Amino acid sequence: MYDLIILGGGPAGYNAAERAAHAGLKTLVIEERALGGVCLNEGCIPTKTLLYSAKIYDYSKHGADYGVSFGSAAIDHGFVVERKNKVVKQLVSGIGAKMKKAGAEVVKATACIQGRSADGFVVSADGKEYTGKQLMICTGSSPALPPIDGLADSLKNGFALTNREVLDLKELPKTIVIVGGGVIGLEMASYFNSVGSKVYVVEMMDHIAGATDREIANMLQKEYAARGVEFILQAKVTSIKDKAVTYEKDGKTVTLPADYALVSIGRRPRTQGIGCENIGLKLERGAIVTNEYGKTNVPGVWAAGDVNGKSMLAHTAYREGEVCINNILGKKDRINYNSIPAVIYTNPEVASVGETTESVKEKGLDASVQTVTLKYSGRYVAENEHGNGVVKIITDNKHHNIIGLHMIGSYASEIIYGAAMMVETEMRVADVQKLVFPHPTVCEVIREGMFL
Amino acid sequence: MYDLIILGGGPAGYNAAERAAHAGLKTLVIEERALGGVCLNEGCIPTKTLLYSAKIYDYSKHGADYGVSFGSAAIDHGFVVERKNKVVKQLVSGIGAKMKKAGAEVVKATACIQGRSADGFVVSADGKEYTGKQLMICTGSSPALPPIDGLADSLKNGFALTNREVLDLKELPKTIVIVGGGVIGLEMASYFNSVGSKVYVVEMMDHIAGATDREIANMLQKEYAARGVEFILQAKVTSIKDKAVTYEKDGKTVTLPADYALVSIGRRPRTQGIGCENIGLKLERGAIVTNEYGKTNVPGVWAAGDVNGKSMLAHTAYREGEVCINNILGKKDRINYNSIPAVIYTNPEVASVGETTESVKEKGLDASVQTVTLKYSGRYVAENEHGNGVVKIITDNKHHNIIGLHMIGSYASEIIYGAAMMVETEMRVADVQKLVFPHPTVCEVIREGMFL
Repeated sequence: MYDLIILGGGPAGYNAAERAAHAGLKTLVIEERALGGVCLNEGCIPTKTLLYSAKIYDYSKHGADYGVSFGSAAIDHGFVVERKNKVVKQLVSGIGAKMKKAGAEVVKATACIQGRSADGFVVSADGKEYTGKQLMICTGSSPALPPIDGLADSLKNGFALTNREVLDLKELPKTIVIVGGGVIGLEMASYFNSVGSKVYVVEMMDHIAGATDREIANMLQKEYAARGVEFILQAKVTSIKDKAVTYEKDGKTVTLPADYALVSIGRRPRTQGIGCENIGLKLERGAIVTNEYGKTNVPGVWAAGDVNGKSMLAHTAYREGEVCINNILGKKDRINYNSIPAVIYTNPEVASVGETTESVKEKGLDASVQTVTLKYSGRYVAENEHGNGVVKIITDNKHHNIIGLHMIGSYASEIIYGAAMMVETEMRVADVQKLVFPHPTVCEVIREGMFL
Repeated sequence: MYDLIILGGGPAGYNAAERAAHAGLKTLVIEERALGGVCLNEGCIPTKTLLYSAKIYDYSKHGADYGVSFGSAAIDHGFVVERKNKVVKQLVSGIGAKMKKAGAEVVKATACIQGRSADGFVVSADGKEYTGKQLMICTGSSPALPPIDGLADSLKNGFALTNREVLDLKELPKTIVIVGGGVIGLEMASYFNSVGSKVYVVEMMDHIAGATDREIANMLQKEYAARGVEFILQAKVTSIKDKAVTYEKDGKTVTLPADYALVSIGRRPRTQGIGCENIGLKLERGAIVTNEYGKTNVPGVWAAGDVNGKSMLAHTAYREGEVCINNILGKKDRINYNSIPAVIYTNPEVASVGETTESVKEKGLDASVQTVTLKYSGRYVAENEHGNGVVKIITDNKHHNIIGLHMIGSYASEIIYGAAMMVETEMRVADVQKLVFPHPTVCEVIREGMFL
């Protein structure tokens, strides 16, 4: 008998488990694969490990701009993948240690909600039954795999890859076609471009990078196009088979032969096979419906992370998990989706928070957009020959507070949290003007932008 | 006849001039060397240019840890210095363009305050006289050069260097003795260590890095000691001559032969020869006395930057300059010295804001100190083999707000501004817990620390 049973040990689940157990709840996490979920095992962390090696390798191409020459440079992809596995293993075991320390139990099994009993909710996991007074569903998401001709077979024979398999390739492809130019597609395009593969990105929309501020998405595309990535936009993939990807664009059909095809067209909440129907959980478009407190339609059942289909970001999941636990503990808490930052770990990095130029128009907000070159930063100039990064600052015209901020350039990933604080706390331009930013940094361009 | 005459075109002066001219004040800046001051011409920016090249070169030593091998690597110090000059030139001309755009006049001359006239204050500059209704003194600072035996001659014959000359060395020293283990000394030690010089740091105190949180200063020292820098603490330098530095420590006298000696033991406000006495300006220990609004004892005369001897940081100067202009314009403004961040651009970087473990004890504050390993960050683990960085979070025990934060590790320089926001806005631990930090980043360890 548990106070709380959590289905899924990813960022939503493991963090919630730690907070819950720490607060004294008898907590069980049931995870069928490895603690850390997609984020740690097949997403955020492994990609960053690969991308960091690629970044170092990139210096062999650009070192001369800074007075450093490298006789010959080579990247050992096999070593990079092995190191990635080592890093992941270390971090997974770190989460295991955290669970133990907090006193949360972990069972490695496939869980399915069976129904209710007098004591609460009954969950089966590999033949055993567990009962929890409350339930939390954190089963995450899976790659969207639409019925494209040949895709199912290509996934089986290894020509088509998802985010999972692409991270374990033993050899570098000469040519790879990436279907879908969102975050996963772009980060992998960045890696394979750096290490010398020929990369095609085929995207159905007329722009890459999803909801990213369009101007910045276009800058990123231009940057990678100059490095040899071929972007094919407004194209519909019609088959993935026979070691080739075929797409239709402007009425023409084109076939791209390749060593591999990465399918990264989106992710779907994992709500199948976990027994949602056994307790009458309400789903919408395959996602569990939750309110801002993480509550589902069934009292005592909570959901957090990708499974609610809202933000599909690890750090959102992390916070949503906490929100659920706080509310379970009687401490009212809610999440503000307007101030959640997002990062694309390309090189240059892209980072965003809040309203974009496009969302401002759509919503009809009375707002101003200021685009500021990062060349105002001495550090940026010192560290970026030929760099043309920018910060875009979006402010409300009535209250003069920061409602959005978008960056392309070095350190963007580590700078954006401060901008998220500005959005979350509704900081006004005049407040930011009074802050002292360290010099010389790239972040100080944000402050400078407040005076333009 | 000017509304405002500014003596000195460094970070305090040029920024104040831009803000003042922008607000409609007829403004004159008198600068005897180059716009941008020490910061841009002989400090912050040139060092960061050198250090970035060194950082790239360092990858040739560590690349193998990440699967990247470099056949042979070389750093061309001459090229690095030339590039540094190019970067500085570009940025100096950028400031010139800003002055022009804002409508501030710039005169390249040595200025001296002559006294008062019916219209205001009279300043002479290379034979011409200028009158301003108000005056702002932003003459910065110079290296402290105490009467050490042989130092004056060694500066003349080129054995002894200050921050100015060290940045223009044509050839790399085999051995360099750095006298003074503060920020400038440590950053140059970092550069010369990276590029292969034998580096000694001789420091009078029992610790390096001045007022930096002691635990973090010690970690930095240990890191560089492991890389071959020799630190000699509690040592008094008695002579700098005959291509050697002699010091006394524990009653023994030791002589270190070297190619060069860098003297970086501190900086003194530049108040000599600018005519402070002609208008009765109050000085204390060589610095112009100002209040939190930037006012001196003489109505209509303001001072900002190193010349007031307070913080001696470019970004403080920048903000102090703005504070003066706002007050001149009748918009009451003051600077909060408690929330000014500071960075040491070594590798790993060190960044700090607010109270330290030591200052908390000294002031008898009721505060808690939490040291958190950066290994909580998946990104840190992915990017730092053998890294052992930390964040130290200092909180007030009564109000549970953040009163200090200190870091050693990657991206610290770009992360610390957010911590400065927390200190400035007196954010509570519970407030930071509700912020969403992007994942995976190093900065998210700050948030994690709020739960420990």
